[in-house]
Amino acid sequence: MTRRVTHGEIQPRAVVLLSGGLDSTTALAMQEEFACYTLAFRYGQRHAVELASAERVSRAFGALEHRVCDLDLRWIGGSALTADVPVPKDRKATEIACGVPITYVPARNAIFLSVALAWAEAIGAEAIVIGANALDYSGYPDCRPEFLAAWETMARLGTVTRTKAIPIRLLAPLIKMTKAEIIREGLRRGVDYSITHSCYDPIVGVGITPTLACGSCDSCLLRKKGFAEAGVSDPTRYA
Amino acid sequence: MTRRVTHGEIQPRAVVLLSGGLDSTTALAMQEEFACYTLAFRYGQRHAVELASAERVSRAFGALEHRVCDLDLRWIGGSALTADVPVPKDRKATEIACGVPITYVPARNAIFLSVALAWAEAIGAEAIVIGANALDYSGYPDCRPEFLAAWETMARLGTVTRTKAIPIRLLAPLIKMTKAEIIREGLRRGVDYSITHSCYDPIVGVGITPTLACGSCDSCLLRKKGFAEAGVSDPTRYA
Repeated sequence: MTRRVTHGEIQPRAVVLLSGGLDSTTALAMQEEFACYTLAFRYGQRHAVELASAERVSRAFGALEHRVCDLDLRWIGGSALTADVPVPKDRKATEIACGVPITYVPARNAIFLSVALAWAEAIGAEAIVIGANALDYSGYPDCRPEFLAAWETMARLGTVTRTKAIPIRLLAPLIKMTKAEIIREGLRRGVDYSITHSCYDPIVGVGITPTLACGSCDSCLLRKKGFAEAGVSDPTRYA
Repeated sequence: MTRRVTHGEIQPRAVVLLSGGLDSTTALAMQEEFACYTLAFRYGQRHAVELASAERVSRAFGALEHRVCDLDLRWIGGSALTADVPVPKDRKATEIACGVPITYVPARNAIFLSVALAWAEAIGAEAIVIGANALDYSGYPDCRPEFLAAWETMARLGTVTRTKAIPIRLLAPLIKMTKAEIIREGLRRGVDYSITHSCYDPIVGVGITPTLACGSCDSCLLRKKGFAEAGVSDPTRYA
């Protein structure tokens, strides 16, 4: 990966939601015209180990600032990612694509995007970037293009300069890409996927023992399939 | 104030944003048809003393559950409510009504509403209630009716049952009311305004010493004016 050359105040700014996973990392890598501010969340996710990946990715791509926002969503419940509910394993691609999976976190994208909006307004950023994908995650209502379009309209009406609404843009560059296309795009942009983390249910390493991806949750399955279809070797360490 | 009689699962549910101030308390008092779940935020506000009021108000109106969500917004900056910037004092009503005041917190309503949406989705609530007011706070972009309408559209698209978008409603019962009308409505509904807190810059009491409102921030001025115009004595303790 290469560090981005920044051009001071002339370069427009963007706030990029960065979980440290494959998608958000690629979305960040694609923002070459922006000075980027990356934002991750410690929300009580069982795979909080992704936060270390987010920080590494942010640094690798020369983001001007990286923030981790603490917002515990465990009290809300309703998701296997934030509650003591087993993460589904070894589901078929057709099962993953249908219905709302138990790993869906209620209103998560609306919440994360709103905090990004506050930061964007405070620093004068003109864009917010999200690695949402409508193909693999068709069961997540907050990854649909119509949701993202409505969110952008809301955001423009809810932010102002002294005289007018700010035409803030919501960019979702991966929205219609397959996982294989995302991986190829990232490799072209210099992404080192070995430092990204996608697994919902990892075996967390201690000391020199590496963290291992479970290899069988929806996120691992989609990741494996993406590398296979892209014809690229998968650098992930699986259990 | 009277405790609401609940009718178990038959009564529809609402999540009510409750700061403990005059407006949100009145908005809660007006929700007689709902079983209410109240939500407050500890966001680094200088007037965190309002949280004690929120809890008292929630209990007084028999909310089924009250939650305080921790979400520090101080790192975002851009507001006198969350940064070490003086709160403006003794401004004229015309000044308060014009432009975006320094007490505006970027995207605060978008953030608070999104967390309310997550909770609403998890508990199957059909409405979210906010005490936003477009008259007194015409300078706050996120109190405008067009913002709230766009937010509702976004929320409906971002939440689902297994088969369809949830027609969640956003209720802003005070949106076009004057402060005097809000106070009269609240009194009619049994609100005891002495337990509410509006001041942005209070002198916080310790032990038996009561907390005093400053009497001169925008919020105190609007509150005083409201009681005066309603022809009702103001129970607030001012410094």
